[in-house]
Amino acid sequence: MRVISLWTSIADAGRELLRGRSSPRRARPETLAADLLSTRGDAVGTALARELVEQLKSVTPEEKVAFLLHLANEMAVDSQKVISAAETYRTQPGPEALQGLRRVAEGPRMELFRRINMAPDGIRALVSLRELLLRHIRENPQLAPVDSDLQELLTGWFNPGFLSLVQIDWNSPASLLEKLMRYEKVHKIPNLEALRRRLAPDRRCFAFFHPALPDEPLIFVQVALVRDMAAKVQSLIETASQPDNPAEADTAIFYSISNCQDGLRGVSLGNFLIKAVVSELTKELPSLRSFATLSPVPGFLAWFRDALAAGILTAADEQLYSRLQQPGWIDDEAFAASAKPRLEALCAHYLVMEKRKSRPRDPVARFHLNNGARLERINWMGDISAKGLDESAGILVNYRYHPAHIERNHEAYANDGAVVASTSVRGMIRPLTERQG
Amino acid sequence: MRVISLWTSIADAGRELLRGRSSPRRARPETLAADLLSTRGDAVGTALARELVEQLKSVTPEEKVAFLLHLANEMAVDSQKVISAAETYRTQPGPEALQGLRRVAEGPRMELFRRINMAPDGIRALVSLRELLLRHIRENPQLAPVDSDLQELLTGWFNPGFLSLVQIDWNSPASLLEKLMRYEKVHKIPNLEALRRRLAPDRRCFAFFHPALPDEPLIFVQVALVRDMAAKVQSLIETASQPDNPAEADTAIFYSISNCQDGLRGVSLGNFLIKAVVSELTKELPSLRSFATLSPVPGFLAWFRDALAAGILTAADEQLYSRLQQPGWIDDEAFAASAKPRLEALCAHYLVMEKRKSRPRDPVARFHLNNGARLERINWMGDISAKGLDESAGILVNYRYHPAHIERNHEAYANDGAVVASTSVRGMIRPLTERQG
Amino acid sequence: MRVISLWTSIADAGRELLRGRSSPRRARPETLAADLLSTRGDAVGTALARELVEQLKSVTPEEKVAFLLHLANEMAVDSQKVISAAETYRTQPGPEALQGLRRVAEGPRMELFRRINMAPDGIRALVSLRELLLRHIRENPQLAPVDSDLQELLTGWFNPGFLSLVQIDWNSPASLLEKLMRYEKVHKIPNLEALRRRLAPDRRCFAFFHPALPDEPLIFVQVALVRDMAAKVQSLIETASQPDNPAEADTAIFYSISNCQDGLRGVSLGNFLIKAVVSELTKELPSLRSFATLSPVPGFLAWFRDALAAGILTAADEQLYSRLQQPGWIDDEAFAASAKPRLEALCAHYLVMEKRKSRPRDPVARFHLNNGARLERINWMGDISAKGLDESAGILVNYRYHPAHIERNHEAYANDGAVVASTSVRGMIRPLTERQG
Amino acid sequence: MRVISLWTSIADAGRELLRGRSSPRRARPETLAADLLSTRGDAVGTALARELVEQLKSVTPEEKVAFLLHLANEMAVDSQKVISAAETYRTQPGPEALQGLRRVAEGPRMELFRRINMAPDGIRALVSLRELLLRHIRENPQLAPVDSDLQELLTGWFNPGFLSLVQIDWNSPASLLEKLMRYEKVHKIPNLEALRRRLAPDRRCFAFFHPALPDEPLIFVQVALVRDMAAKVQSLIETASQPDNPAEADTAIFYSISNCQDGLRGVSLGNFLIKAVVSELTKELPSLRSFATLSPVPGFLAWFRDALAAGILTAADEQLYSRLQQPGWIDDEAFAASAKPRLEALCAHYLVMEKRKSRPRDPVARFHLNNGARLERINWMGDISAKGLDESAGILVNYRYHPAHIERNHEAYANDGAVVASTSVRGMIRPLTERQG
Repeated sequence: MRVISLWTSIADAGRELLRGRSSPRRARPETLAADLLSTRGDAVGTALARELVEQLKSVTPEEKVAFLLHLANEMAVDSQKVISAAETYRTQPGPEALQGLRRVAEGPRMELFRRINMAPDGIRALVSLRELLLRHIRENPQLAPVDSDLQELLTGWFNPGFLSLVQIDWNSPASLLEKLMRYEKVHKIPNLEALRRRLAPDRRCFAFFHPALPDEPLIFVQVALVRDMAAKVQSLIETASQPDNPAEADTAIFYSISNCQDGLRGVSLGNFLIKAVVSELTKELPSLRSFATLSPVPGFLAWFRDALAAGILTAADEQLYSRLQQPGWIDDEAFAASAKPRLEALCAHYLVMEKRKSRPRDPVARFHLNNGARLERINWMGDISAKGLDESAGILVNYRYHPAHIERNHEAYANDGAVVASTSVRGMIRPLTERQG
Repeated sequence: MRVISLWTSIADAGRELLRGRSSPRRARPETLAADLLSTRGDAVGTALARELVEQLKSVTPEEKVAFLLHLANEMAVDSQKVISAAETYRTQPGPEALQGLRRVAEGPRMELFRRINMAPDGIRALVSLRELLLRHIRENPQLAPVDSDLQELLTGWFNPGFLSLVQIDWNSPASLLEKLMRYEKVHKIPNLEALRRRLAPDRRCFAFFHPALPDEPLIFVQVALVRDMAAKVQSLIETASQPDNPAEADTAIFYSISNCQDGLRGVSLGNFLIKAVVSELTKELPSLRSFATLSPVPGFLAWFRDALAAGILTAADEQLYSRLQQPGWIDDEAFAASAKPRLEALCAHYLVMEKRKSRPRDPVARFHLNNGARLERINWMGDISAKGLDESAGILVNYRYHPAHIERNHEAYANDGAVVASTSVRGMIRPLTERQG
Repeated sequence: MRVISLWTSIADAGRELLRGRSSPRRARPETLAADLLSTRGDAVGTALARELVEQLKSVTPEEKVAFLLHLANEMAVDSQKVISAAETYRTQPGPEALQGLRRVAEGPRMELFRRINMAPDGIRALVSLRELLLRHIRENPQLAPVDSDLQELLTGWFNPGFLSLVQIDWNSPASLLEKLMRYEKVHKIPNLEALRRRLAPDRRCFAFFHPALPDEPLIFVQVALVRDMAAKVQSLIETASQPDNPAEADTAIFYSISNCQDGLRGVSLGNFLIKAVVSELTKELPSLRSFATLSPVPGFLAWFRDALAAGILTAADEQLYSRLQQPGWIDDEAFAASAKPRLEALCAHYLVMEKRKSRPRDPVARFHLNNGARLERINWMGDISAKGLDESAGILVNYRYHPAHIERNHEAYANDGAVVASTSVRGMIRPLTERQG
Repeated sequence: MRVISLWTSIADAGRELLRGRSSPRRARPETLAADLLSTRGDAVGTALARELVEQLKSVTPEEKVAFLLHLANEMAVDSQKVISAAETYRTQPGPEALQGLRRVAEGPRMELFRRINMAPDGIRALVSLRELLLRHIRENPQLAPVDSDLQELLTGWFNPGFLSLVQIDWNSPASLLEKLMRYEKVHKIPNLEALRRRLAPDRRCFAFFHPALPDEPLIFVQVALVRDMAAKVQSLIETASQPDNPAEADTAIFYSISNCQDGLRGVSLGNFLIKAVVSELTKELPSLRSFATLSPVPGFLAWFRDALAAGILTAADEQLYSRLQQPGWIDDEAFAASAKPRLEALCAHYLVMEKRKSRPRDPVARFHLNNGARLERINWMGDISAKGLDESAGILVNYRYHPAHIERNHEAYANDGAVVASTSVRGMIRPLTERQG
């Protein structure tokens, strides 16, 4: 039984189909998009979609941005049509009027994207288009509705029911491992030996794939199987360390989770991945009793600076912050020891108390708390890389996933914005203006 | 590298998640649907969706129909909300108002279906739900909007970009071949030997699969590789016939195409399949010069009867029709020879001239003409099975797919309803009231 | 990464290599064999071997038998050379003299077979050659040394270390299942439904494959997972029976074991298969406590007849045997009830006491006892098929494989020819001339 | 359908079987070998073989060498038994006497190795045992007969009919590519980027695998697809070079061929690999017109030195040789230009005229000429790596494989030791004592 890539077949069919067209073979994307939208019939539609996808691969980035702006300006929802269709519906409600209203409220762009997705590699073209869009949205705010349309469609197409969970190890294709090295953003993988260590018997790596992008991981997580909850990431990613016996581990540490496709920003994948991996590991290693992340606190020092500017901290904090800006403080043991309690207290305060729109200010905290995790522990000198020192004075935190509490935690967070934190973390919080010792 | 079924993982995670819930483990589908719609957060949502899918498997058909009616009645679009959202948009147009209008115009049911699709086997549950719906829609016309919602969503999820084309042969799993035997509707496969003949070296069989339904063919086509265009189906499906050398074939006859999933009615798959298979066969066997179907004319005799009732035919036609109702006419050679020219003329007329809403009355003609095929030839005694005689007095027709003409044919049909037919078929048409001979 | 069938490559290379040869393309097998033996260098050797293999496929069976006789007569060990090489060795012992002695003692035929095995499909040709040989060895006893050579080589090449164990189920290729139906000899599989029942969740089927014959099962065993040791085979192979829950089974019954390749007769595969399957099932279903066969007693009635002829039984036995020759005795309940104790006693005697060359006379008993099984139970009316009644008056027996006793049982049998039997079987034995009741 | 590693099953069965044995679980290899040889019955035999294989993994290298010496001394052929069996055969020739003679002439060691091969991983243990043996055979010449036995058996088991040809590319498992880097001996692969270049679209890599060693390549060849015959290896393995379009190549250059398993020394694999790859490439790329190696001349400078010592060269050659011993001569363009003709002449002489036992003195020449290649061209500065300069003053040669001439070339070589060389190479040869220019 032979499985054939459908794309190739349809692509080849498409080429043939368009051979006789009067329009020039290589029209501009804008023209092809208009043709694609106006065609009836799937056969020609697919061929046109394929032509458009091919064109989008070959045009310059500037032309692609122009195409995006064209989509924003010329293929937007026509508010007059919406108002008129709504009026029709109001006077004569019924399925057809409703369908008409929906169609104009959605606009031609959504339909165009759906038709592009019928081309071979259509979904890849759309993901890549959105990646470019997100790089230009700041200077072109009129792209926001285009982005919103794409995100809505991609969320449906990257439904977890369509994904496969893949365990990656040292027998995985070299081409895939090479991508892992490129996509890992949290704790860089400097070379193949480092990667090999991360795929050793006491480590696990899982990724999501979509059937229409079989060679592209969407997101992957790296897990360390250890005894007791890990506090420092450097010891986990040390290339030279000896693998432990995974059967003796009682804790799985999710020490890095990386999204691979910028074009899928906002498409929820991470929480499904974490849950699926918890479930897989539980089956494989019944001895595991605890699942936790070892996570950065990317916004801590930025908040510290803002809080000083806002005058809500003490003069001692001012000095503390200055010292942190000077390289080498981490090696000044006396200073570090004296700074530790205040930094831990400030970090606990930052994670638990500081909110924006009633959600925690820290993005990593938002992600894990919304998934139902608990803020478990603050780890002094958890990540002493340059990046770790810059962002959070070297502090890392554990978020713990306890299957029996995930729903309760999630609901408390979703309903009230409650930050579920362990007693030990809560106990670290001090009034901002009070200086202990 | 291990590929794990994602469903299992998420399903197992889901079980754990719901363990602590206060609501009883096995709530009614209506309750679960309400819970699922009101939850925030993907984790619990997936668990609830899974619970609902499980429940839908275990309830009785009557309870399932009741659930469908509940969806129709209680989860419909709220026209008051639509009108009010439209008013908001009219007075203050903007992305958020538009989004709000879209949401209420879509209604809660669409959102519910999308959330069900996040469960393991969610898509299977929805396809099966729609299959049941279609069996009860006639006596429950209020289910029409539910059907419309499901069809819209399934069309997006069964996008050809997500499908795989699989060539099925005698080495395919027995469990799959068993399904083929069950799903083949055009020319029944009585036993394994008959199937084996249809998978011999001078035959081909291709099917579409979706990654979320890996064990279920969606649609399949059976192809005979022959010399010259085939006119009779019985010779193609004769179990005892000797396989020919496929390398000597110049024509591929698509003699049977079967949809397998009733729940996917209206989701366009057949035209993609035909085109993909034409492309595959061209690559495999460059000697093929012609691609054509050998198709039934399911509505011919029904139209003949209606035309007699409408008084647009002759008295001789009346006698002819009566004789066709008597068993055994096919063996009366003299009668058959005398009937042949008139029946061919009437059939040509029926296929080319008879329209409904400016489209051909015959459903198989509509399908192939819309795909860009040409009505090529009328085959007397093409299918002398009981079904063939009942439907079309044994006539079969060839629709020809010529890659270079597909688009032109399709456009003529799509724009003007033009039936592209060969000279020989056109030449058979006679005025309805004129009796030759 | 692409795995290429090596044979194709070498075959194609071979064709090219021989293109320039002066000898005619299609020489007789005898000529090709001589060429093959005399060539130096693997390249040409492989091409010649391939040519010979092709020729053996195309010649008539009579020509093939002639080739076998040629191998027997013209490629035998040359005893004069052996004696002379032995003399050389005696006077000047050393590695080279020994090597020379070995070579002539082995003879040219063995070397020829080894070279044939270098051709694509060489091993298949040799297995098929031996299959033919075994059909003609009775009338051509001079083929015995050829058979002996082939068996020695095939035993090495079908080493268990080279085999793969495959679990066959309803998802296996139809082409493989078709072979199973053809090869099953013990309890015929009449149709696909019967096979499907034998592959249901409470059944298992395992086969051995060799990498050089990937499409050919070598031997397979069918297993029923049941509660308590099964006594009757008809209930196990009943197509209409409902599958039981395999998780509740405590006993695995090996109710049929079939060799598929006649050309591998005498190559030990069955005992490895049984042991491997016991191990697999133990892992899959830890609840299994007992592993036993449900086996025929193929030689029982033949021995009964011989024993009567030899006058070692009673006159009542004479009457009993006569009655067994009349059809329908099985439905005569009174007779059957009266015959049961004596037939069980005779069968127990036959299995435990009757020997040939100090091994049990019954071939199935020899096989399982040599594997370390114990004769566990005699089952009255275990197989009431025509074959079962003909061979053993419907009696079947269980041989039990108890992992902890296999070695002890095997050694007792191997050293002393001891038949290890349960107390209940031993208790059934009566003096041959004594008639109870 | 599930394919189960047979080894695991048999291994697990084996463990169980030996549980009750009186002998200690972990006996010495010598004891286990004696037990294994004396056992009857496959069941216990396999278990013992497995135990022996496990033991051989865990003992020290010294103990393993002691075991090899034990095999040499205590399990050798018993010449008295051979002489006695030969006498029996002389007086009463017959199949049994012959069989008896063969058995004692083969000795117990061969039988032991065959039994070890029935264990899981038995063949791996034997390959590894021979690898160790070959490292110690120089100081222990009594191991020669052990080596000879192993080579004979391994040659049968690594029959090309049992191997699979695998094309390795950048999608191959990282663990396999890592092995390639380790095993490549001719032109070292310094890092992953270098390897990636060697697997680019204009390169090919093929390896042989054996089913019982699925994770171990046996031998692999690296091929460059180029225009015109390549003369310099550095340009082929240059990491930074741009891949060419393989469809435009007319020549395949086999620039490196590496045996991976030292324990398989003397088992013919390379010639099969070259032929299989020629055949595969011909099918994939019909535009290829020429197949050639780019090969080292490892013995050239060593012979030059010996020839000087033997006084058969000129005083000028003496100076030339001295200069070649001084680093940096390659950058002295004037010297290099003046040395080129004489070095080419000497190299051509060395390859064509210098023999040992009527075969070329150069091992690489022996290999390719015996395979049927022709010595095609001498390439000045073909390999200017340190190794290339040391061995052959930087000279590389092309051996050409022309399918139509392979057999003729091979036979000329095999029968007469003839070195088939191109006119250009032959034209370079000069009398040794004549100095041109």
